[in-house]
Amino acid sequence: MKIYLDAMGGDFAPKAPVEGALEALTNYSDLIIELAGPLAEVQPVVEEVFQGNEALKERLVLTDCPEVITNCESPVMAVRHKKQSAIVDGMLKLRDGQVDAFVSAGSTGAVLAGGMFRLGRIPGIDRPALAPLLPNGKDFFLLIDCGANVDCKPEYLHQFAQMGNAYMQTMRNIATPRIGLVNNGAEAEKGCTLTKETFQLLQADGKLNFVGNVEAREITHDVADVIVCDGFVGNVILKFMEGVVETLMDMIKGEIYADTRSKIGGLLAKPAFKRVKKKTDYTEVGGAPLLGVRGNVVKAHGSSNGHALACAIRQAIQMTEGELVRKIENQLVSAETETVSEQI
Amino acid sequence: MKIYLDAMGGDFAPKAPVEGALEALTNYSDLIIELAGPLAEVQPVVEEVFQGNEALKERLVLTDCPEVITNCESPVMAVRHKKQSAIVDGMLKLRDGQVDAFVSAGSTGAVLAGGMFRLGRIPGIDRPALAPLLPNGKDFFLLIDCGANVDCKPEYLHQFAQMGNAYMQTMRNIATPRIGLVNNGAEAEKGCTLTKETFQLLQADGKLNFVGNVEAREITHDVADVIVCDGFVGNVILKFMEGVVETLMDMIKGEIYADTRSKIGGLLAKPAFKRVKKKTDYTEVGGAPLLGVRGNVVKAHGSSNGHALACAIRQAIQMTEGELVRKIENQLVSAETETVSEQI
Repeated sequence: MKIYLDAMGGDFAPKAPVEGALEALTNYSDLIIELAGPLAEVQPVVEEVFQGNEALKERLVLTDCPEVITNCESPVMAVRHKKQSAIVDGMLKLRDGQVDAFVSAGSTGAVLAGGMFRLGRIPGIDRPALAPLLPNGKDFFLLIDCGANVDCKPEYLHQFAQMGNAYMQTMRNIATPRIGLVNNGAEAEKGCTLTKETFQLLQADGKLNFVGNVEAREITHDVADVIVCDGFVGNVILKFMEGVVETLMDMIKGEIYADTRSKIGGLLAKPAFKRVKKKTDYTEVGGAPLLGVRGNVVKAHGSSNGHALACAIRQAIQMTEGELVRKIENQLVSAETETVSEQI
Repeated sequence: MKIYLDAMGGDFAPKAPVEGALEALTNYSDLIIELAGPLAEVQPVVEEVFQGNEALKERLVLTDCPEVITNCESPVMAVRHKKQSAIVDGMLKLRDGQVDAFVSAGSTGAVLAGGMFRLGRIPGIDRPALAPLLPNGKDFFLLIDCGANVDCKPEYLHQFAQMGNAYMQTMRNIATPRIGLVNNGAEAEKGCTLTKETFQLLQADGKLNFVGNVEAREITHDVADVIVCDGFVGNVILKFMEGVVETLMDMIKGEIYADTRSKIGGLLAKPAFKRVKKKTDYTEVGGAPLLGVRGNVVKAHGSSNGHALACAIRQAIQMTEGELVRKIENQLVSAETETVSEQI
C-alpha cells in the first residue's frame, strides 16, 4: 500500500504532514508514504521529526516537487501550469497506478481541479463531489456535496446520493444507508426547482434507501446516513456548523467566567466539555473524500495537525482496501441495468 | 394603535395568543388588540386568562372568524377559499387601514399568501421576504430571506438587501447597516451564478453599505447586520442553527450527567447556562417580519408562548411607529433616482 502525501498542504505544512506521515507509518507496518514537496524545505523537517525512527524512515519516499500551489491562485490555471507541484504529480501517479491514494490538506480548488483534469472522472459521473463525515451526536453522517459544485442539476444530486451510498456501505459498514435530501420542508411537494426534481429521481431509484426530504433542523438528529445537497448549500451547512459551534462554545465559556459559582462549576465540568470536544471533532474520522474521480483522493481540513493528517491517511487506506472506486462504478452500473431492464 | 392578532395561530393556540394579548395590553396603555378566531373556542380562554383584568379587556376586540387555516393545507387555496379566517380577514383590514399591523404564529405559507394576494406588494418589490433577527452572541443580525422565496433572481436578493437595510435603520437604530451576502467564499469572484450576479448589484448600489461576501462560518461572528440569501439557503441557516444548538446542548447535558464531578459542576454552572439560553432565545426580539408587503406583518414562531407573542406584538407596534413601509418605499425610490441620475 502506497499513499501519496502533499507535504506543503494546509496551514501547518510541512510540519503537520511530516508528523502525520510518522504517525501513519507507526500504525501501519506495510505502508509506504511518498511525501512530496520542495525538498529543500521538507527534508530538514523530516530529519527533525523522524529523529530516532530510522526504521520508519525507510518506508518514507521523498519526492522533490519544487512548485507549490497556494490558496491565492486560480486552481485551474495552477493545475495546468504548475506541473512540478505535489498536487499535479500525485494525481498523475495515482492515475498511472504508481500510488494507491492521494492525501492533501492544501487548496480545495486545486485538489478538485487536479482530480477532474489530471486524474479524471469515473464514467457516468458528471461532477465529482466533496463529502466529509460530520457528527450528529450519536454517529456520523456523510454530507455530499460540500462545495465542489455550486450550480447543480438534479442528475448530479442523484449521482451524489449513489456515491454517498457506496461510501457508507464500504467505509462505515451500513448495509442500506438512509439517504436524505436537504429541503425546506419534509413533504414531497416542498422545495425549490432543484430539490423537487431531485426528489423524483431519488424516489425512483430502487437501489437507494431514500428516506425523503430532511429539514435543516433535523440534519444533526441522526435521521439519515447520507445527506444530499448541492455544493453551495453543503458549504453553508459545513461552515455554519463550525461557526455556530464556535459561537455557542465561546458564549458558554464567557458566561461561565462571568460569576464565581459558575466558574467553579465550569472547572469541575471540564471532563464533560473535553468529551464534547472529542465527539464534535470530525477530523478523527479523516478528511473529505473527493468522490467520483478515478482514484482515492482525500482532502484534509486546511487546519489539520499531524494527527488529523494521520486520520486522513487511515481513511485513504480504508478507501483503497474497500475498493471504493469499484464500488461506486458498480453502483452506477447496477442502477443503469435496473433502468434498462425496467424499460424492457 | 390597533393590532390584529390571529387567535388560532401556532402550536399553543388559542391560549398563547390570548396570554400574549394580555401581556401586550398591560405594557401599552394606548394599544387596542383585535383578536380573531372561532369565538366559541376563543371566548372561554379569554374569560379565563383575563379574569381580574376587566379594564384591560375593554381594549380587546373579539372578532368571530369561524374558519381556521392549518399547516396541512395548500396556503394559496386556503387564502383563496377560507374568507372567514383570521389570516384573510386580518390582511384585508390591514389593507383597508382598519388596523395598523397583523401578527400571527400560524401557517407561514398562509401568512405569505395572505400578504401577497390580500394585502399586496410594495411597488418595486417583486417578492416579499421573511426576515427574522437571529443572535450572534454579541447582538442580532437580520437574515433575509429565510424561506418565502426558494427560487430567486439576483434582483430579488438586491431588494432583500434594500428592505433589510430599511428595517435595521428603523428598528435597530443602525445608521448604515453592514450588508453581507452569504457565499461559499469571501472573494468577489467566488459563488454560484446567483450570488455572483447579486454581488455586482449590491456593489453598484451606492445607498447600501455592502461589506461583501460572508462565508457561513462567519454568519454568527458579527460581521454584518443584514445577511442576504435566497429563501432556500436562509431556511437552511435558520433551521440548522436551531438544530445544531439543540444537538450541542443535548450533548453537553448528556456528558455533564455522565460523571459525578461534571454533574456537580453542571449544577453550579446553572446560572451561566441560563444566561446562554436567554441570549440565544431570539423570540425575545419578536417574530419574523414579512417585508415587502403594503403593511406591517409579523410571523411569530409556531412554537411561540404568550411572552413570545407579546414580543411579536411589541415588534409590530415598533414597525408601525417607525413607519417601516414608508421607509422601504423611500429606499426603493432613492435607489431608482440614483440609477436614473447616474444614467444622465
